[in-house]
Amino acid sequence: MAKSDWKAEAKDLKKKLRKLKEALVEPVLAKKAKPVSPLAPAAFPQLPAIAGVSFAAVEAGVRYQNRRDVMLVHLAPGTTMAGVFTRSTTRSACVRDCQAKLAMKVPAGAGAAIIVNSGNSNAFTGLVGDEAVAAVTTAVATALTLPASRVFSSSTGVIGEPLPHDRITAKVADLASALREDAIEMAAHAMMTTDTFPKGASATVQGDGGLIHIAGIAKGSGMIAPDMATMLVYLFTDAKIPAATLQKMLARHVDATFNSITVDSDTSTSDTLLLAATGQSTAAEVKGPVAKAFEAALHGVMRDLALQVVRDGEGATKLVEVRVTGATSHADAAKVAFAIANSPLVKTAIAGQDPNWGRIVAAIGKSGAEADRDKLSIRFGDILVAAKGWRSPDYREEDGATYMLQPELVIAVDLGLGTGKRSVWTCDLTSRYIEINADYRS
Amino acid sequence: MAKSDWKAEAKDLKKKLRKLKEALVEPVLAKKAKPVSPLAPAAFPQLPAIAGVSFAAVEAGVRYQNRRDVMLVHLAPGTTMAGVFTRSTTRSACVRDCQAKLAMKVPAGAGAAIIVNSGNSNAFTGLVGDEAVAAVTTAVATALTLPASRVFSSSTGVIGEPLPHDRITAKVADLASALREDAIEMAAHAMMTTDTFPKGASATVQGDGGLIHIAGIAKGSGMIAPDMATMLVYLFTDAKIPAATLQKMLARHVDATFNSITVDSDTSTSDTLLLAATGQSTAAEVKGPVAKAFEAALHGVMRDLALQVVRDGEGATKLVEVRVTGATSHADAAKVAFAIANSPLVKTAIAGQDPNWGRIVAAIGKSGAEADRDKLSIRFGDILVAAKGWRSPDYREEDGATYMLQPELVIAVDLGLGTGKRSVWTCDLTSRYIEINADYRS
Repeated sequence: MAKSDWKAEAKDLKKKLRKLKEALVEPVLAKKAKPVSPLAPAAFPQLPAIAGVSFAAVEAGVRYQNRRDVMLVHLAPGTTMAGVFTRSTTRSACVRDCQAKLAMKVPAGAGAAIIVNSGNSNAFTGLVGDEAVAAVTTAVATALTLPASRVFSSSTGVIGEPLPHDRITAKVADLASALREDAIEMAAHAMMTTDTFPKGASATVQGDGGLIHIAGIAKGSGMIAPDMATMLVYLFTDAKIPAATLQKMLARHVDATFNSITVDSDTSTSDTLLLAATGQSTAAEVKGPVAKAFEAALHGVMRDLALQVVRDGEGATKLVEVRVTGATSHADAAKVAFAIANSPLVKTAIAGQDPNWGRIVAAIGKSGAEADRDKLSIRFGDILVAAKGWRSPDYREEDGATYMLQPELVIAVDLGLGTGKRSVWTCDLTSRYIEINADYRS
Repeated sequence: MAKSDWKAEAKDLKKKLRKLKEALVEPVLAKKAKPVSPLAPAAFPQLPAIAGVSFAAVEAGVRYQNRRDVMLVHLAPGTTMAGVFTRSTTRSACVRDCQAKLAMKVPAGAGAAIIVNSGNSNAFTGLVGDEAVAAVTTAVATALTLPASRVFSSSTGVIGEPLPHDRITAKVADLASALREDAIEMAAHAMMTTDTFPKGASATVQGDGGLIHIAGIAKGSGMIAPDMATMLVYLFTDAKIPAATLQKMLARHVDATFNSITVDSDTSTSDTLLLAATGQSTAAEVKGPVAKAFEAALHGVMRDLALQVVRDGEGATKLVEVRVTGATSHADAAKVAFAIANSPLVKTAIAGQDPNWGRIVAAIGKSGAEADRDKLSIRFGDILVAAKGWRSPDYREEDGATYMLQPELVIAVDLGLGTGKRSVWTCDLTSRYIEINADYRS
């Protein structure tokens, strides 16, 4: 067939294809618009009810339509609170408000509440942002008969647009009357933005005189350089723990969990982590060996949620642990680990299932940490790839390539200089990340 | 038409389309396999011949086939040399060799040479890497009757694979006999890796007793986090300038040019910038006001080449200047500028032509620099977007959206705190970046 005939045929086909697409492809695409991450857990876990904690969620239409976008948590009288927040200089109005309220050290007597909306982060919104926080938290305080100083709020979504807080306050009465102990999954759903699945985790600890339960939920998906999506985490326990102790316990486990999933996670405008202890377990106040067990369980829940956030990294197809040892200090180990975990070239190589260890070498070199080419070694899982200044003589490219096919990878670097170490988790960088972020707002 | 009919039609169309694709689309795609960046200059510039400098390039098959991949520069007796290199702890064997040779301060008498190959960076190749450098530079020294200490080499390409140096040494005689003053464009071509166009720039300065010429070439394209592609730059002038002065002049202009195009550019394994002054202009030694004019011209050439590297950023469709003023220090201004310029979320928003200034707010917040929400302002070009803690009342989203359609953008941030400032250049982050880097090696 001549080229001109082909061209005529092409024109005809183009028309037919457009019709075909309308009939077959678009309805499917519409359904799959937000495919669940391939790294997602099979299902939302069964979380234990925490005595003294109840949840509700509603459709308020803050930004999204046809989905629940505001959730409320009520915490019974006697609940102690702890929190860790972003250090961003442009953090949101609600983050500043939470920090101020926690610093007031209000006695636990009256109980507390947490209200969260998705779709708008109320960050960089000036005085009207502060007014919005006041309006929302005051409405909740009134509805639940709490002091306003015990109502914490979070907002997640677009930065710089005024929060239409009247849409939230209009729903506070509905929320207050819908509170249920078993609605935690619904609450996890309501705070999702670009998340493809809700995130939950739990643990049970044997206390002194009864079981202690921990349950937590998180949202987060813009993992590679968290921004407006970033992280909100709420942890609940029925343990009896004074507020000051609770704060110390929480702070001890943040670095190895939520601050190890990306170098930027601690500095977005909205990052909020709250831990509430209702004290309603039959177990006595958490102390001694029970405290140790409790902290281990808390660490496990925090790490589980942190890894779920990476698993939901925008466009992610691989979960990667970067494990650095042998650095001259923990700080140097962290520099190397984050340099690798944040390198677009390492992340794209992983997306392409390419065992391109040269890019890991380059990331180590640029990290700013002390490193000696002839002392460091690089492993893919257990496979020794490079050591003594060059490619390991036993390393075969096929082995690296086969290893890369797995959905969960470990990149291990030993710098051979000291005892400093750090493990961080990241995901690969795919075209889907670009698609999601090139038109998040439109 | 029923769904089953559509499906039958689809099957038939699929077959026809495959044939159509073979006939029409694939030949076009094959030709466009490496499309030139939309930000590329219209053509390689006309560069002046520099008296005392000659070039040659050959096909050596180091890695690439059917293209020139090794280039040689000969520099006449009396040429002084200066250089600036990556600070990576895993820098390549040739970078270490160049640094050692420059430190020897060999008198300019004998002349000098530069040999560059693409396809393999000879980085992280241990002792065999050093041997490869010695073999190549010794072969050039012998062919051109130079001391080996005056032969500088660069390698760019994959990290961690032994450089097949015999393929290069086998071509040294051919190179030496092909040296020509007017072959600088061919040399620029030979060092390209993922570059989509060769980069050149020049300037002429009125010296004391004659004209002084400057010509330079560069390669670089992996801009977002330079790695194996990164930057090689060679600058030539016929000015008379002693080596020590030349080194000081070069060093003064690196920060505002090549070190302002990405935070990682100064730390890859191969980055090399060499400046050679043959002294063959009729003008007297560069001093006083001529020195000032010469440095201004040198700065211009360096900046032009640096911006060309950004214009060839992998997958780039936009050239973006990030201009930060009003910081408490230049260092703080640099932190903010690079935080914005390296933010994947800012870069993807620009790719999507989305005036998503909230992501700029987030980048400022995470930068680690001192910032006050209520004092900073953000502009797109001349359009005031945000100030006094929130969106400017006069800002209209349509204006921002229209501005974003341009291929060259300025993001200006004034922190309102002091006199610290820094401008850096970056490009957008597109799916094409992922495509290029997910299978660079295959």
